[in-house]
Amino acid sequence: MIVCTTITELKAQLLKQRRSVPEGRIGLIPTMGFLHAGHASLMRRANEECEYTILSIFVNPLQFGPNEDFDRYPRDSERDIALAEANHIDVVFMPTVHEMYPKTPFTKVLVSTVTDRLCGASRPGHFDGVGTVVSKLFHLIMPDCAYFGMKDAQQVAVIKRMVDDLNFPVEIVPCETIREADGLAMSSRNVYLNEEQRNQAVVLSQTLLAADDWLKEPGITAAELASRINSKIREASLAEIDYAEVLEYPDLTLPEQGVDLSRHESTLIVALAVKFGQTRLIDNRLMVPFGGDRHVQNDDEIQAASGNRNRS
Amino acid sequence: MIVCTTITELKAQLLKQRRSVPEGRIGLIPTMGFLHAGHASLMRRANEECEYTILSIFVNPLQFGPNEDFDRYPRDSERDIALAEANHIDVVFMPTVHEMYPKTPFTKVLVSTVTDRLCGASRPGHFDGVGTVVSKLFHLIMPDCAYFGMKDAQQVAVIKRMVDDLNFPVEIVPCETIREADGLAMSSRNVYLNEEQRNQAVVLSQTLLAADDWLKEPGITAAELASRINSKIREASLAEIDYAEVLEYPDLTLPEQGVDLSRHESTLIVALAVKFGQTRLIDNRLMVPFGGDRHVQNDDEIQAASGNRNRS
Repeated sequence: MIVCTTITELKAQLLKQRRSVPEGRIGLIPTMGFLHAGHASLMRRANEECEYTILSIFVNPLQFGPNEDFDRYPRDSERDIALAEANHIDVVFMPTVHEMYPKTPFTKVLVSTVTDRLCGASRPGHFDGVGTVVSKLFHLIMPDCAYFGMKDAQQVAVIKRMVDDLNFPVEIVPCETIREADGLAMSSRNVYLNEEQRNQAVVLSQTLLAADDWLKEPGITAAELASRINSKIREASLAEIDYAEVLEYPDLTLPEQGVDLSRHESTLIVALAVKFGQTRLIDNRLMVPFGGDRHVQNDDEIQAASGNRNRS
Repeated sequence: MIVCTTITELKAQLLKQRRSVPEGRIGLIPTMGFLHAGHASLMRRANEECEYTILSIFVNPLQFGPNEDFDRYPRDSERDIALAEANHIDVVFMPTVHEMYPKTPFTKVLVSTVTDRLCGASRPGHFDGVGTVVSKLFHLIMPDCAYFGMKDAQQVAVIKRMVDDLNFPVEIVPCETIREADGLAMSSRNVYLNEEQRNQAVVLSQTLLAADDWLKEPGITAAELASRINSKIREASLAEIDYAEVLEYPDLTLPEQGVDLSRHESTLIVALAVKFGQTRLIDNRLMVPFGGDRHVQNDDEIQAASGNRNRS
C-alpha cells in the first residue's frame, strides 16, 4: 500500500496504474479518517468491485461551520493507515489542508433543493463544502466508482444529484449503515459520548425501528408519525432533537400532508439528528411502506431506492 | 467528421478514440455556434496540439439573463458543421437543451471574486451558467486541453480559476482575439449591427490601441486612463457604455488608486462593454506597461500573462 500526501505523488501512482491496467476499475472511498467498521465495509465493497482502490482521508474545513467541531474532530492517521492496509487498499491519499486549498477557494459547487431540509438546514454551508471537496477528489482521482455510507443519506442524495446534474463520469455506490451491537450507527463522533450519553444514544436506532412498525398502521399520517417519533426520542432524558423528519427519498421533499403513509408507494426516509451534550448524532432509515419488502436497508435495496442506474 | 447530438453517441466516439489512441491528446473547443474566423483559429490551434478535436455547439440557456438574447442568438448549424469539417474537427457535439438539462438543474458551479466586476456585474448569473455548462462539457468529454478566445478575457479568468480551484484535469488554452480588417473583434453578435452601428463599432478596438499609448505616459493614473477611455468611446454617437475599466489580470481587481500605471509591473487589462442599439459588444486588451514588450496580444504572451503553466 502506498500513502500519498501530495497531489503530485497521487497522480504519479494513478498514471502508473492506468498504464498497467488501462481498463481497470478505480474505486474511491472518500473519508474524514478515524476509520471504523462502517468505513471497513466500504473498503470491502470497493475491493470486491474494483481493480484498484483509493481511500482518501481529509478533514475538510469547508464543510464545518464556525461553531462546529473541525478542530476537535478525532484524528488518528497511524491507526487509519493500518486499517486501510488490513483492508487491502492500494493507495491512501492523505493531503494537508494547504495541499487541497493552496489559495483561497473562489469556486464552490452548490446543490440546491435537496439541501433545503435536514442537515442542509441545520448546518448552513455544510453541503457546499461537501460538494466542493468531493468534486476536487473526483477530478484528482477520476474514479469509476465512489463509495458512501447511507448513515449520511442526505449526503448521498446531494452527491448523486451533483453527479447527475454535472455529468461526472463516476458511479455513486451507497452502502448500508453499519451498527454497534445495540444498534447505534457507527460514527467517528461516537467517541465524544460519555457513558450515559452512549447508553441513551441507542434511542435513535430504536426509534427508527419503531417508526418502521408505525408506518405499517393503516391511516398513519406524516404528522402522526413525526409526533410519535419525537415523543419516543424524548424518552431519552439527555436527547436534544435537532430534527426528526419523514421525507421522500432521494428528493427530500415533504410527502403530501394528511395522506395514509401505510399505502405510500415510493421510498420514504425517516431522518434524525439528535444532540447529546455537544455531540450531534444522525441516523436514518429508508422505507417503502406499501407493497413488497417494507425494509430497505441492505445494499441492493439501497441501490434501487436511491435510483442508481445498473452497472454495465 | 462525426456529428453527435446525444451524450450516448458522444461517449461511444470518445471510448473508441481512447481505445485506439490511449495517450492521444483530446482537445475541446466549446462554442455557442454561428462560427467565425475567431472560432476557426481555435480549431487550428487545437489541431496543432491534439490528436483528436471536439467542437461543441450549444447555446446554453443558463448563461443568458431573462432580458438577454437567448432566443434571437444567431444559429446556423449547417454552416457551422461545414466550417468544422473544413477545419479538420473530428467530432461536433451539438446537443439539445433537453439533452444537456434533462431535469431542472439543482447544481451550480459558482466562481466568486473574479466575477465581481465587468460582465460578472453587468450580467448577474452569467458566469454561474458558464461555469456550470463548462463543467458539464469537461465531465462529458474529459479533454486534455480546452481552447477559449481572449475576447472573453473574464470568461478565461473565471474558467482558469474554476479549473485550478476544483483540480479539473484539463489545460485551459487562451487564444488571441481575431479581428476584422478595421479592428472590430470577431463575434457572432456582430451580425446584429446595422451599417451605421457597424461603422461606429470600430471605436472599441481604436480605444484599446489609444489606451495602449496612454499607458506609456509617465504619471498616468487609472482614473485618468479611465476618463480618457470613456471620452474616446463617447466620440461614437451611437455608443452606450456598459463598462470601461482598467483592472489587474487575471485577478480582475482594481489597481492601487493614484499610482503611476506607466511603471506598473504586472499585467493589466483594459476591458470594454459598449452597446450599439440592442447589441452589446465587448473587447479588451492585456498590457504590461513597464519593462519588456508593452503589448501582450499574441498567443504565447497571453499564455504567460494568464499565468498558464507550461505544458509537459
